Amino acid sequence: MRITVWNEGVHEQVDAQVAAIYPTGIHGAIAEGLGELLTSATIRTATLDDPEHGLSAEVLAQTDVLLWWGHVAHDRVSDEVVQRVRDRVLGGMGLIVLHSAHFSKIFRTLMGTTCSLAWRNDAERELVWTVKPTHPIARGVGHPIVIDHQEMYGEFFDIPEPDDLVFISSFAGGEVFRSGVTFTRGLGRIFYFSPGDQEYPVYFHPQVRRVLANAVEWARPVDGATIPDVTNPATNWFSP
Amino acid sequence: MRITVWNEGVHEQVDAQVAAIYPTGIHGAIAEGLGELLTSATIRTATLDDPEHGLSAEVLAQTDVLLWWGHVAHDRVSDEVVQRVRDRVLGGMGLIVLHSAHFSKIFRTLMGTTCSLAWRNDAERELVWTVKPTHPIARGVGHPIVIDHQEMYGEFFDIPEPDDLVFISSFAGGEVFRSGVTFTRGLGRIFYFSPGDQEYPVYFHPQVRRVLANAVEWARPVDGATIPDVTNPATNWFSP
Amino acid sequence: MRITVWNEGVHEQVDAQVAAIYPTGIHGAIAEGLGELLTSATIRTATLDDPEHGLSAEVLAQTDVLLWWGHVAHDRVSDEVVQRVRDRVLGGMGLIVLHSAHFSKIFRTLMGTTCSLAWRNDAERELVWTVKPTHPIARGVGHPIVIDHQEMYGEFFDIPEPDDLVFISSFAGGEVFRSGVTFTRGLGRIFYFSPGDQEYPVYFHPQVRRVLANAVEWARPVDGATIPDVTNPATNWFSP
Amino acid sequence: MRITVWNEGVHEQVDAQVAAIYPTGIHGAIAEGLGELLTSATIRTATLDDPEHGLSAEVLAQTDVLLWWGHVAHDRVSDEVVQRVRDRVLGGMGLIVLHSAHFSKIFRTLMGTTCSLAWRNDAERELVWTVKPTHPIARGVGHPIVIDHQEMYGEFFDIPEPDDLVFISSFAGGEVFRSGVTFTRGLGRIFYFSPGDQEYPVYFHPQVRRVLANAVEWARPVDGATIPDVTNPATNWFSP
Repeated sequence: MRITVWNEGVHEQVDAQVAAIYPTGIHGAIAEGLGELLTSATIRTATLDDPEHGLSAEVLAQTDVLLWWGHVAHDRVSDEVVQRVRDRVLGGMGLIVLHSAHFSKIFRTLMGTTCSLAWRNDAERELVWTVKPTHPIARGVGHPIVIDHQEMYGEFFDIPEPDDLVFISSFAGGEVFRSGVTFTRGLGRIFYFSPGDQEYPVYFHPQVRRVLANAVEWARPVDGATIPDVTNPATNWFSP
Repeated sequence: MRITVWNEGVHEQVDAQVAAIYPTGIHGAIAEGLGELLTSATIRTATLDDPEHGLSAEVLAQTDVLLWWGHVAHDRVSDEVVQRVRDRVLGGMGLIVLHSAHFSKIFRTLMGTTCSLAWRNDAERELVWTVKPTHPIARGVGHPIVIDHQEMYGEFFDIPEPDDLVFISSFAGGEVFRSGVTFTRGLGRIFYFSPGDQEYPVYFHPQVRRVLANAVEWARPVDGATIPDVTNPATNWFSP
Repeated sequence: MRITVWNEGVHEQVDAQVAAIYPTGIHGAIAEGLGELLTSATIRTATLDDPEHGLSAEVLAQTDVLLWWGHVAHDRVSDEVVQRVRDRVLGGMGLIVLHSAHFSKIFRTLMGTTCSLAWRNDAERELVWTVKPTHPIARGVGHPIVIDHQEMYGEFFDIPEPDDLVFISSFAGGEVFRSGVTFTRGLGRIFYFSPGDQEYPVYFHPQVRRVLANAVEWARPVDGATIPDVTNPATNWFSP
Repeated sequence: MRITVWNEGVHEQVDAQVAAIYPTGIHGAIAEGLGELLTSATIRTATLDDPEHGLSAEVLAQTDVLLWWGHVAHDRVSDEVVQRVRDRVLGGMGLIVLHSAHFSKIFRTLMGTTCSLAWRNDAERELVWTVKPTHPIARGVGHPIVIDHQEMYGEFFDIPEPDDLVFISSFAGGEVFRSGVTFTRGLGRIFYFSPGDQEYPVYFHPQVRRVLANAVEWARPVDGATIPDVTNPATNWFSP
């Protein structure tokens, strides 16, 4: 299992409060959590400032599952890299999209919708409830996960109908959100998980770490997957 | 449009508080609300104490959509009537299942699961959020519907994957619930809607009435529907 | 009901055989069929060669449902028009995507996948079977629809999981195809229907015309729909 | 992994032709195929004539995944055993339902529909096409699986909307069938797979054996699963 954790990495550089919460970056905290739970995985990190954002064709070819965190710099991600990531996802690479990356180019491209939502940053308690307990991503996860302080994300969340709705969150203010949803695009499996704002230490939460590790295992590509392509078969090609 | 509102009608007879809230019965309040919004519909009511529970073959044959409320007397509903209702649903009659009728024989028979859930009767505020705004049942409905006092129903709600998840509720205590869900069984359309406990005047709420009227219109049978049956067609039967 | 039928309109200009089958263009045949069945609808047509491809902001603002046929000129459709159509779909306009338009920019943008498939042009018999008989698009449609000669489209069809699978086709050569599938994107309803190649008079088939008329009625926008947007509500904004 | 293969075992006793195709019974052929591919699994078989049909509470408690084949003796399966199997499925045991067991009591109970279909026994070629290539059940399976002779099963197949549609079959006569479909009921995973008539040696087909082995692995229960039950939690029970 080869994992790449991508983070735009901007807040940590310009906001001392975020840097204090995430001293090795949001990507560092996520990678640390995955390393604890997936001990045999190869984990690398990449950020916006790296050449090609750290997502060269070589890196992607060696990535089974990519995690993506972004917020204020979606527009600074090059279209070429987005296209490259998209092709890899359609060809089978797993993709885990986190929190404010609902507005990332890669997620919007794969969804086809605005991906808009309601939000309020008021340090509210978030409860993450499992509504599909048989799903591998929910394995060993508390019901609910209690996150003491989080940004509120609320419905209507403008996404296509998910393949599976795994988690629904409520917030202290009363809003609800489909906070854990899966999609298949081409041969790639995609999981969007909303907890994880830069102002709160959510990626140190043991249950959140469990969800991400489960998601990575679930999103692993089918063996030998390649991007679907047009074919023009002869009649009875399947009969020897 | 021919509607039958079925209610076990037990609480109203034995509990003065419920009788005060619902002087014409829960069925009476529901029928009144439907009559206001669906002015050309023919609406009848039926209860447990009626002969054949008011659901004779004749009544069902003249019913396009059946609404079902029950709570303490599920076991007193005869298996023969349940079978009859089931056959009509599979043959195309719409069915709207309300609140504690999640445990009714007819709903459990059509779902195949336990239909269990978490509950707490603490007069909590329920907020009903629309997560599928294009669904006809959500047309003209507030986002959220605010119900000041209601029994809490919480996840995990043991139902099959719904065709459409239209509403998600949150409660003051933090629980969430898939409160408006649709299913198709045979040729029949089914909508389960959880708001509506006997201790609270929920069926007088204008928005709840709107949901029920929308649901009835949505669940109307396809013309000429009959219960699916086995066929044994000859080769090329479709080519004249 | 205001309908716009869009066709790239290239084959009819350069291929006498196609022009003979579709003397008023593929768009003309489709518009004629819709006019027969939806007698109160306002129907206009538009083609690639019209200014702004006939899809100005004004035209789209007055369109409830747009039908789209294209094949050899997908790349000649301007990105600006595609973006405009996409925004209208997300804001509620219905979209019916036909046959080779599986590869149109607008469909691929809304799906997020390659939309690739298998094909073979061998004048094979196509049988279109209804697998969701309660769906409004299947109302009054034969089971199967028999199309004597058609281009084969076969699986794997690289689309996201549809909301509803309405039709599955088989072809004389043995391939199958999910030939009638629905999606919701934003507030817009989308129906893809595969029968309809330029070399065969499929859009004169009464059953195909019935499907398209049903689809247009089904895809009609919700009243007052607008493209979903981000909101930042205050706590308890819903309580007066 | 503990597997139980259940077969009514009637045809093999009364029909010499079936006994010749399946000398160790249909259950024997299935068990043999699973044993080849799941070498570390514990596999037992059970039939109608065994005490309690071989499905005592003890056997079920030690079964992770149950396969079910039946045809002419559905009515001879005791309601008590059906109820016991159902409770185990809802509590997490996987269930693989085969061919004519679409009409078994256990499948109809879990589906809630008639499970009717069209059929024709004419030794037709069946092609099984994969339409969800990312699904674990499709791993390593040919596209299509070619089965030279089979009974035809055709649409409309009266089942609830599946969680996942994995396979669609076509038959030489032109019919199509949703031949591989998954469901979740309670905590149990269910897979229905239609190829496998008693008159044809389908369960010796290497690709069919691969599908069944994949399905068994996919249907394995979540650790520690138990049948969902009602709870009545206190307010804030989740906050220590």
